[in-house]
Amino acid sequence: VGTFKVTLAYDGTEYVGWQRQASGVSIQGTIEEALMELEGAAVTVSGAGRTDAGVHAAGQVASFSIRRTIGPDALARALNAGLPPDVRVLKAEEVPDSFHARFQARVKTYRYRIFNGAVLSPFERRFAWQVAGPLDVEAMASAARAIEGRYDFAAFQGAGSDTGSTVRDVARSRLASAGLDIELREGPGAMRPLVVYEIQGNGFLRFMVRNIVGTLVEIGRGRRAPESIAGVLASRDRRQAGPTAPAAGLVLMSVDYDEVRGFAASS
Amino acid sequence: VGTFKVTLAYDGTEYVGWQRQASGVSIQGTIEEALMELEGAAVTVSGAGRTDAGVHAAGQVASFSIRRTIGPDALARALNAGLPPDVRVLKAEEVPDSFHARFQARVKTYRYRIFNGAVLSPFERRFAWQVAGPLDVEAMASAARAIEGRYDFAAFQGAGSDTGSTVRDVARSRLASAGLDIELREGPGAMRPLVVYEIQGNGFLRFMVRNIVGTLVEIGRGRRAPESIAGVLASRDRRQAGPTAPAAGLVLMSVDYDEVRGFAASS
Repeated sequence: VGTFKVTLAYDGTEYVGWQRQASGVSIQGTIEEALMELEGAAVTVSGAGRTDAGVHAAGQVASFSIRRTIGPDALARALNAGLPPDVRVLKAEEVPDSFHARFQARVKTYRYRIFNGAVLSPFERRFAWQVAGPLDVEAMASAARAIEGRYDFAAFQGAGSDTGSTVRDVARSRLASAGLDIELREGPGAMRPLVVYEIQGNGFLRFMVRNIVGTLVEIGRGRRAPESIAGVLASRDRRQAGPTAPAAGLVLMSVDYDEVRGFAASS
Repeated sequence: VGTFKVTLAYDGTEYVGWQRQASGVSIQGTIEEALMELEGAAVTVSGAGRTDAGVHAAGQVASFSIRRTIGPDALARALNAGLPPDVRVLKAEEVPDSFHARFQARVKTYRYRIFNGAVLSPFERRFAWQVAGPLDVEAMASAARAIEGRYDFAAFQGAGSDTGSTVRDVARSRLASAGLDIELREGPGAMRPLVVYEIQGNGFLRFMVRNIVGTLVEIGRGRRAPESIAGVLASRDRRQAGPTAPAAGLVLMSVDYDEVRGFAASS
């Protein structure tokens, strides 16, 4: 038996999300099907982040064990040959059998991409939330920074979620603007007026990033003061936060694990 | 009667190209249909660049005349309401009736995007040509510069084309690399190893840009010397050039016209 850690990128537009659902095509199910071809038997894949319907990944991490003897590079190639082009294995590594992509994840980084222009670029329509009208990016940046730290994020949790503790550590919460190390404008051409939000933490509640972004956009539109975000956090009341930003803008950028831990070298 | 100049962006993936064809959906036909809704009668639209099937535009220019009295901003909004999200009007301007988007175009700029990585990013699959394996970007850059100037580009013309003169002026032909003003790597994440080629000229033969790129990639792969491009030009023989690069990587970035010329201010 070999256990593998795979790093994945996907365009989530056509999927019901990471997790298998009663109906619709999931990323997890798509990968499990490609693995079944390889293994000749059902394989269960664990993903570090259970991205919702329409959410993308540039660095999702998943793990699974298979009986078939295969090196990590051959595994990546075989999986990519079986997967649709909107789901790609970027890297495969053989890891100790004790490795579990979700339980051992230490830090996750998400980006949210806002297209702040009157006409949504056809190249961005799958990967951004279009917000027309002026945005006060400085006010948004200051509010974003106010949630760095250990807080109870209950106010930003999706309604109807049922989890234990709603306390999370947010190591970084930044809006891209001049002087920060995330670029405000990305991509080809002058026609991408993108505002990019990045959040890094040890874990995220359901819809937490999208609810934070929805609140930041209300601040950017001048409908809330940047200082109000502390009161939203303190309220622990979902109704105090802004609306849930659309799935299309959200990208799981990377998942980090403790170094060392006995990772095996390639195959 | 009002004559309008519109600047368009489109994801060409699902289209048979700019021009109406016997079958399939064209960009021109799509815009003419949206205009017909507005005008209540057939309208003919002229495009500056007749982009081929699968080719994109970030700054195509088109012109047409309508009887309906409408301001340029209202026209842009009305067209966008009728167009699918993969075709967008970025700007509309009222122009003298003598304006013609194709006949008066002075300079066109195209970019070609090469994804030089083993695994094609799901975010780039519609907008780039994947070339796996190492590319000698310096050799490609030097070959690219060798075609700046006035040359007979017959060797780079699509087979079966029937045009008059095959002489064109190429004002700029550059590969992005450190020190040039086109960025080598664009877009979000570290996973976009993009090589970008830009060419600017007064006109292009059919498949000319894609045939140049196919030749540059052969040079990048070490199958041709960078100096060989001069001989290809001199041969005027299509068989001396490389293969036609795929449509997906090509983007019509902008079309320039002479300034002044009596352009009316926004009505």
